[in-house]
Amino acid sequence: MKYQESNLVPHKSALMSTAANILNEDVCLPAAVIKKAALENNIQWMQRYADARGVSLAPHGKTTMTPWIFQQQQQAGAWAVGVGSAWQASIAMVSGVKRVLMVNQLVGKANMQLVAKLKNEYQDVDYLCCVDSVANAKTLSAFFSAQNQRLDILIELGVPGGRCGCRTAEQALALAEEISGLPGLRLRGLELYEGVLHGENPQPEVEALLRDAAALACQLERYVEGEFILTGAGSVWYDVVCNIWLEANKPANCRVVIRPGCYITHDKGIYQEAQDELMARDKVACDLGGDLVSALELVAMVQSVPENDRAIVNFGKRDSAFDAGLPQPVAHYRQGKLLKQPAETIETTGIMDQHAMLKLKPGAEVQVGDILVFSTSHPCLTFDKWKALLLVDEEYNVLETLETAF
Amino acid sequence: MKYQESNLVPHKSALMSTAANILNEDVCLPAAVIKKAALENNIQWMQRYADARGVSLAPHGKTTMTPWIFQQQQQAGAWAVGVGSAWQASIAMVSGVKRVLMVNQLVGKANMQLVAKLKNEYQDVDYLCCVDSVANAKTLSAFFSAQNQRLDILIELGVPGGRCGCRTAEQALALAEEISGLPGLRLRGLELYEGVLHGENPQPEVEALLRDAAALACQLERYVEGEFILTGAGSVWYDVVCNIWLEANKPANCRVVIRPGCYITHDKGIYQEAQDELMARDKVACDLGGDLVSALELVAMVQSVPENDRAIVNFGKRDSAFDAGLPQPVAHYRQGKLLKQPAETIETTGIMDQHAMLKLKPGAEVQVGDILVFSTSHPCLTFDKWKALLLVDEEYNVLETLETAF
Repeated sequence: MKYQESNLVPHKSALMSTAANILNEDVCLPAAVIKKAALENNIQWMQRYADARGVSLAPHGKTTMTPWIFQQQQQAGAWAVGVGSAWQASIAMVSGVKRVLMVNQLVGKANMQLVAKLKNEYQDVDYLCCVDSVANAKTLSAFFSAQNQRLDILIELGVPGGRCGCRTAEQALALAEEISGLPGLRLRGLELYEGVLHGENPQPEVEALLRDAAALACQLERYVEGEFILTGAGSVWYDVVCNIWLEANKPANCRVVIRPGCYITHDKGIYQEAQDELMARDKVACDLGGDLVSALELVAMVQSVPENDRAIVNFGKRDSAFDAGLPQPVAHYRQGKLLKQPAETIETTGIMDQHAMLKLKPGAEVQVGDILVFSTSHPCLTFDKWKALLLVDEEYNVLETLETAF
Repeated sequence: MKYQESNLVPHKSALMSTAANILNEDVCLPAAVIKKAALENNIQWMQRYADARGVSLAPHGKTTMTPWIFQQQQQAGAWAVGVGSAWQASIAMVSGVKRVLMVNQLVGKANMQLVAKLKNEYQDVDYLCCVDSVANAKTLSAFFSAQNQRLDILIELGVPGGRCGCRTAEQALALAEEISGLPGLRLRGLELYEGVLHGENPQPEVEALLRDAAALACQLERYVEGEFILTGAGSVWYDVVCNIWLEANKPANCRVVIRPGCYITHDKGIYQEAQDELMARDKVACDLGGDLVSALELVAMVQSVPENDRAIVNFGKRDSAFDAGLPQPVAHYRQGKLLKQPAETIETTGIMDQHAMLKLKPGAEVQVGDILVFSTSHPCLTFDKWKALLLVDEEYNVLETLETAF
């Protein structure tokens, strides 16, 4: 499209000066910012956790889809990067990631063609995806063997009422038996996502699923040559996954892989709650020192104060997740200066496509042109609203523009 | 970022062959498609409606942020394109749009710098934005007069408990008086968005607001040189806006401008309901012939059928709006052939980041690899999940890749 050739500014939170500072209004607001120190802390903390447990870390890349972050995670010691689609796998490989765990089924001719192309282009990259049906296994084998390629796969184990995955050990074993006769496939292990278990107190169910998986892995061992990959764990139950799988009987040459994603920027919402619970129950995490901290913030400007107890800021559903709590103010600046009034006197109560509505409680004094910094909840759906996020230092100087690839 | 230079495929619904057909699996699924005939119908229908009413049309561009669509709307006769931010204004201008109505406040030094740059670069473009406070008016005037520029503005009228906008005629008149003494601003008219009025039966409130606005416009007339712009109307109340404003006393040289946005692709959810109600009450729309039709669809593939009454497809919150009803199946294909079983036997019941959960009712027979076509609700939040949407004909041949600019 011709419009991009003459684009004046490359993305919506464009820098309008060099050495841009956000509080100095050098950046088109709203902007999504990542605090560098907090990001580095989180990358290091989760890697240290995996190292302390003796498991491998495959951060789920779908959260950020940000090549620069993939690179930081890999450099810090991540064994792989997790992705959810062939497109996401292509971005991970183009970013230099050396092992890509597509924790999803690969379906459709075009998606298979893309993976075949990637396997040719990046022969040093270890790419794996998941299979949960004989139908899919046969289609994949036919396609990849016709390309003279072999696809590395994990069998997915699921739960009744959940998402994908074989529902029983019998199904999984029958599938492994089929796969062993298919020339285009090579079985490498077993995958699950315990995060589909919800409810009042899902921990017993999570533990039972993990025990079942370890027992199943022992039965699948004979179908796998070399190392057996056993992988699970989002950002909520990664300690429990380690507890159960490290103690369980499992294949002799077994690599346990955890795949948290949202830890990367953490939040001050649903993942903060989950991590607080984890810290309360897990001695390893407690003894590690430090903790995950919120690294992703939205910075927006007050554009209207139309009523005494009501202000409107210039971010909306086009800029932020809103499915797990609204972004809430954590700091308030006027002409570059931090105001002393507590951010808690301002509450985000509503959101539209391009606006958010704030309730001003007693003590809140807000003016048009004030800058508010908001914490977020559920980072995934904030990242995908931005072509670029801004990496900043503690003074909100912009250090780097981080392009995303959604 | 280096990763883009060697990008293998440019966006997530990449075409893997020339002369790509979606049902032939030539495109990485999921994909967001726009049916060309439906899109053209909608562009023409709304333009004919505005023409029949003798009002000007300024389609809200924030819905699509798709330059090619902006161009089609302008070519069909749109008087302007509406936008919600300085960034969006830049995209409209770079796309060749000749009048940009930023129906929002312009705040922050960087956003003002961007607009100043646009005004220099695109001197033939008529750019307007909204003001609802003396504070904002003074800041804007100081900035733009320092650039030897003059900013064209509309006063925004709001409602108590609503979004931006002056809450009373007195406030608006006092603001107009201030503006008349500010060298960097030129008042051009009055703006409102009646869509903030919700509730059981908002029509009487909407009508009262519109009458108040017309009366206020008469009082503001003396502050405006030449044509007076009076603008409102999203995709729900555009008939009522015409009814009230065309009959009301208003400034002698008054241009009424309606700004629907979501009509462009329409949907089979909240906007279908709104349009059905409009057709039932508005003779002009009824007599016009034809109607808006749903033009935006999601095409996804079944990746797992783990239970008899449950299937999983490969789109999720990363691909679709979910704030106004989930996408629902409208067609079911297997190996390129339309199946006869009614799409109503399949219901989307849940959505995660990369997956949607389908309930299979009696009569539904679904296999891994089947293609399902989904209608959508609330187009805005589906568009912004895609770097590119695919323009298709009735046989789902891809005619054009439409880049978005979010």
